[in-house]
Amino acid sequence: MTIRIAVIGAGLMGADHAKIVAEDMPGARLQVVCDRDSARAAGVAGAYGAEVASDPEAVIARADVDAVIIASPDFTHAPLSLACIRAGKRVMCEKPLSQSSAECLTVIEAEQVAGARFVQLGFMRRYDEAYVQMKAALVQGRLGRALMMHNFHRNVSTPATDFTGAMAITNSAPHEFDVVRHVLGTEYAAISATQPKRSDALVAPVCMVLETLDGQVVTIEVNNNAAYGYDIRAELVGETASIALNPVAYTRLDAGLTNATAYDADWRSRYRDAYVRQNRAFLRFVQTGDFPQIAASAWDGYAAAVVAEAGVRALASGQKIPVTMMARPELYA
Amino acid sequence: MTIRIAVIGAGLMGADHAKIVAEDMPGARLQVVCDRDSARAAGVAGAYGAEVASDPEAVIARADVDAVIIASPDFTHAPLSLACIRAGKRVMCEKPLSQSSAECLTVIEAEQVAGARFVQLGFMRRYDEAYVQMKAALVQGRLGRALMMHNFHRNVSTPATDFTGAMAITNSAPHEFDVVRHVLGTEYAAISATQPKRSDALVAPVCMVLETLDGQVVTIEVNNNAAYGYDIRAELVGETASIALNPVAYTRLDAGLTNATAYDADWRSRYRDAYVRQNRAFLRFVQTGDFPQIAASAWDGYAAAVVAEAGVRALASGQKIPVTMMARPELYA
Amino acid sequence: MTIRIAVIGAGLMGADHAKIVAEDMPGARLQVVCDRDSARAAGVAGAYGAEVASDPEAVIARADVDAVIIASPDFTHAPLSLACIRAGKRVMCEKPLSQSSAECLTVIEAEQVAGARFVQLGFMRRYDEAYVQMKAALVQGRLGRALMMHNFHRNVSTPATDFTGAMAITNSAPHEFDVVRHVLGTEYAAISATQPKRSDALVAPVCMVLETLDGQVVTIEVNNNAAYGYDIRAELVGETASIALNPVAYTRLDAGLTNATAYDADWRSRYRDAYVRQNRAFLRFVQTGDFPQIAASAWDGYAAAVVAEAGVRALASGQKIPVTMMARPELYA
Amino acid sequence: MTIRIAVIGAGLMGADHAKIVAEDMPGARLQVVCDRDSARAAGVAGAYGAEVASDPEAVIARADVDAVIIASPDFTHAPLSLACIRAGKRVMCEKPLSQSSAECLTVIEAEQVAGARFVQLGFMRRYDEAYVQMKAALVQGRLGRALMMHNFHRNVSTPATDFTGAMAITNSAPHEFDVVRHVLGTEYAAISATQPKRSDALVAPVCMVLETLDGQVVTIEVNNNAAYGYDIRAELVGETASIALNPVAYTRLDAGLTNATAYDADWRSRYRDAYVRQNRAFLRFVQTGDFPQIAASAWDGYAAAVVAEAGVRALASGQKIPVTMMARPELYA
Repeated sequence: MTIRIAVIGAGLMGADHAKIVAEDMPGARLQVVCDRDSARAAGVAGAYGAEVASDPEAVIARADVDAVIIASPDFTHAPLSLACIRAGKRVMCEKPLSQSSAECLTVIEAEQVAGARFVQLGFMRRYDEAYVQMKAALVQGRLGRALMMHNFHRNVSTPATDFTGAMAITNSAPHEFDVVRHVLGTEYAAISATQPKRSDALVAPVCMVLETLDGQVVTIEVNNNAAYGYDIRAELVGETASIALNPVAYTRLDAGLTNATAYDADWRSRYRDAYVRQNRAFLRFVQTGDFPQIAASAWDGYAAAVVAEAGVRALASGQKIPVTMMARPELYA
Repeated sequence: MTIRIAVIGAGLMGADHAKIVAEDMPGARLQVVCDRDSARAAGVAGAYGAEVASDPEAVIARADVDAVIIASPDFTHAPLSLACIRAGKRVMCEKPLSQSSAECLTVIEAEQVAGARFVQLGFMRRYDEAYVQMKAALVQGRLGRALMMHNFHRNVSTPATDFTGAMAITNSAPHEFDVVRHVLGTEYAAISATQPKRSDALVAPVCMVLETLDGQVVTIEVNNNAAYGYDIRAELVGETASIALNPVAYTRLDAGLTNATAYDADWRSRYRDAYVRQNRAFLRFVQTGDFPQIAASAWDGYAAAVVAEAGVRALASGQKIPVTMMARPELYA
Repeated sequence: MTIRIAVIGAGLMGADHAKIVAEDMPGARLQVVCDRDSARAAGVAGAYGAEVASDPEAVIARADVDAVIIASPDFTHAPLSLACIRAGKRVMCEKPLSQSSAECLTVIEAEQVAGARFVQLGFMRRYDEAYVQMKAALVQGRLGRALMMHNFHRNVSTPATDFTGAMAITNSAPHEFDVVRHVLGTEYAAISATQPKRSDALVAPVCMVLETLDGQVVTIEVNNNAAYGYDIRAELVGETASIALNPVAYTRLDAGLTNATAYDADWRSRYRDAYVRQNRAFLRFVQTGDFPQIAASAWDGYAAAVVAEAGVRALASGQKIPVTMMARPELYA
Repeated sequence: MTIRIAVIGAGLMGADHAKIVAEDMPGARLQVVCDRDSARAAGVAGAYGAEVASDPEAVIARADVDAVIIASPDFTHAPLSLACIRAGKRVMCEKPLSQSSAECLTVIEAEQVAGARFVQLGFMRRYDEAYVQMKAALVQGRLGRALMMHNFHRNVSTPATDFTGAMAITNSAPHEFDVVRHVLGTEYAAISATQPKRSDALVAPVCMVLETLDGQVVTIEVNNNAAYGYDIRAELVGETASIALNPVAYTRLDAGLTNATAYDADWRSRYRDAYVRQNRAFLRFVQTGDFPQIAASAWDGYAAAVVAEAGVRALASGQKIPVTMMARPELYA
């Protein structure tokens, strides 16, 4: 039975999701593309013969929509996820669930009331082959006990000129907040953050140091104006060995006294396979009702929001800020 | 309209093709899996709800089969391709079309009589991202004129203990014969071949030197018992720059005084993406009737057979053997 | 005129220095090797026909000793350097000058009284080709303004089992403290430090974050029990580009499904060339009286001690500790 | 006792040798620099306080010259080596001993008559750390039996515009001819050679295939106008594993969507350490009379000339040419 999927939001991410549903998810059908801007929705839907809509709540309620992918603006993620829960429909919601941990809790509560998980959160890096190998090496005992994880998140440039250090923490770092928790299998205890000074008006990198409940130290650099390329690095240092993401390049060029490999320009090419795997896992979730083993849940969205909130306070105050989470509900055990 | 595909042959490659049709080709359906060994066919078909059959000619003729993938033993490739042409059905045939250039010609003639191309040949490396980038660099003029292409084809071990040097040329090297022609956009003029001596009974590597009509020199090493890993290397040397396939590894491990990346154990993981891309191109071919721009045709199968035949004679004689092909029919222009 | 050099201390480092003087410094002669343990001194001196002595102060005073290399235990570095200054002899003193910044000041004062620099400090990394290229790239403007420098200092295992986190800061990290100051051309403003928890009794890594007076953020990990190899990494991130130390390996081995390069087992092979360059610079210093342009001075020894002292307090307190240095005397301008 | 060395020839290589003698060979003194062009000799000698001369035979005969380094034009190598043998002086002669194997034999005969080896030949790659590790891996049995060795010799551009394919074989390839024999510990049986076509008047690469008496296959590409950099590659493929030269770069730069390492512009920086090691081995040879274990001898010069002569014939004829050497005299056992 084909799963009919609605994609809400027809921006860059929504268009990518629509394409994945239409081209990379046998068993799914792109039923409808919804955007406040109908022309934009039509632009995306047209290529795949999907319907066009502009009211997300109505789309969620449609009888011919079995499941939903939310890729609309961040502030809509939690309300629309709640609408999906109310409608009893599973939803793949782009990160973040909400930048407010309190709002994340409303989703968690709704799921608890419903007695089931509905929300799969779009922390796609969990499905990236490199992180999968990293976690496997740790679990298999090839590294000894985990001691540190070093993370570097670098974009060519910020999408907007008024991007701030706090936004680096709330918008970019959550990918690291989540995947580190996922790889290490623990929660954060504290966070501190600082920034170097740039010579221009662009947002400077943010350097964070986190401690986990298991006694690990985690460093995260978010450099939204790294200029040289989209470059995600991570190294997991164990007591006996260390594993790192290896840059993937298909060719190398010898020219002009250099040997060079290419960087991606942005995350979309770098994580293309991860998005496909993630969305296929979502399809199986819709088909079977079994929440995917490695996917991020509403709880993981809450965890990311909590540490981001602490990080913003840490950056503003120059202090180390404790990370305090509610007890993990049984639903997310 | 869903394209109903029959997969003929349920061995390793047939199983992989069946999986790709079922899981990675939206718009296609795995209609039937055919194998002389019905149990083996059932083993593959079962997972995807496909039908089982044992007579390939009958399968090709079925009204509910729109297109065919041939992954049965090599000697069946040409006869079954001919059956597909007769049935007016497009076919993705695993390489080689035939080890006999004369038999390849029968397919070419059948297509010419039919006035259209039906056969897409499974030289999947043309769809590998690395070779795609290599050809693009050449075409874009980033390398200057092509001078040499060096190729290394290494397997962990031979499938059979009675593998010979001639088989290295007819079974393994055709991948290089084809992709080099494809990248360089030319044909071969001559080939010589030699082998080092092993200390054991395993087949020794075969080292070939080829000249092209455009005056390039091509070297190909086929080492079927390289032991250390499945490793495909290629470098295209131009007058001003050089481009090489870069090994793809997602992680690297630091342990025991070494930094190490992993090799694939065989071609199936290494070229997984290429197979998917190739088969999707085949689907579009079936849907549109337009032969895929970079896919290999029956003509390319003939070209590979001609050079392999010359290579076998070169190895046996120790002489440089000219490679002589018929004129390219207009159908393959 | 041959420069007659005394090496004080015949341990591992002293033996290496004696070898360099005897074999890699044309224009210098290994005159005498001095160690409290005469047998150990003889063991080193014998190979090069040098004399043996056991009283360092007497050696420094000898008329047939033109210059001194100090490689005796850390606590002797400052007193023996002072003895060299009193004797009017130039001295290459192994790091640290002293773990006490106050004691470093006594050397600085002695040099100021004498009106000249006598002490070259053994921060050999300044002479390492990789750091030389890194600093050159920054100075040449290839990176834009420096924003961050990330440093990783990993040993296979600690020399002693009672090694502590404080010792990681006072004994290992000074190499990074110095070379980062040297590359960036600035001083530190503050330091914080934390450690993950190990599962055994070995000293855990120390993770430090430093801020510079120019507004850069510097991270330093010292992992004395990294197990996998001796591995020194550094990356300098600028506003427009980034440069990193590249691992040097002369060969790579394909075996057992991996491609591997080797790590050094310790710093002696890794920095062999840097030690030779450094000691040759010292020879020119002795010959010409011109302090080598990139060498570390007593002032640099003081700077390293100040930040290490702050680092120890930071680790103990969990607080960010300011780094406060006296004004740089004109002698070290 | 200081060894007084004369350097004959004050061109690029002579100047490098003079520098090494003066700065990197404790125990040696640069006594005299000899060149037909006295001004050029003076330019090199001046920096090190050495004498200047213009008559090489007279220099070789001088009582205050203990040993000789020959770096004058190729055609003088054999005659001057013979003069050294007559004078009973050991000589480090730049490669080639002679491009004529017959002339090489005159040197071999002279040494046999004298009953000792005098000539160390400047095949410095034997002292390169990478080749040392490669040979060690083979000898230690880490690769299994050697099957193939692939070699790539690439220069940015030819020194002269009238450089020919034959010259690539006689002037450039001897480095590979020698180091391959050295690593494999065998002799050549046959050689064939071919060239691709360039679009311009520059000399095209030469591709050679050699067979050894032990049944190995060796490929050598000499590309004197590779444009992109000075790049020497070699891979030794064994029955169980493979070892390759790894490019040495001290830093890597991230900029403009690429990650890049640098190539050397020529062999002088690439093999600087090898030249020093080689010349130091020569000094020990002079001091002890024991021919250095891994150095090239007159016999090795003969062997390189024989295969180069066969190579030139192979290139001209398009045929595989046997390589026939005289029996190895006992002196070179």
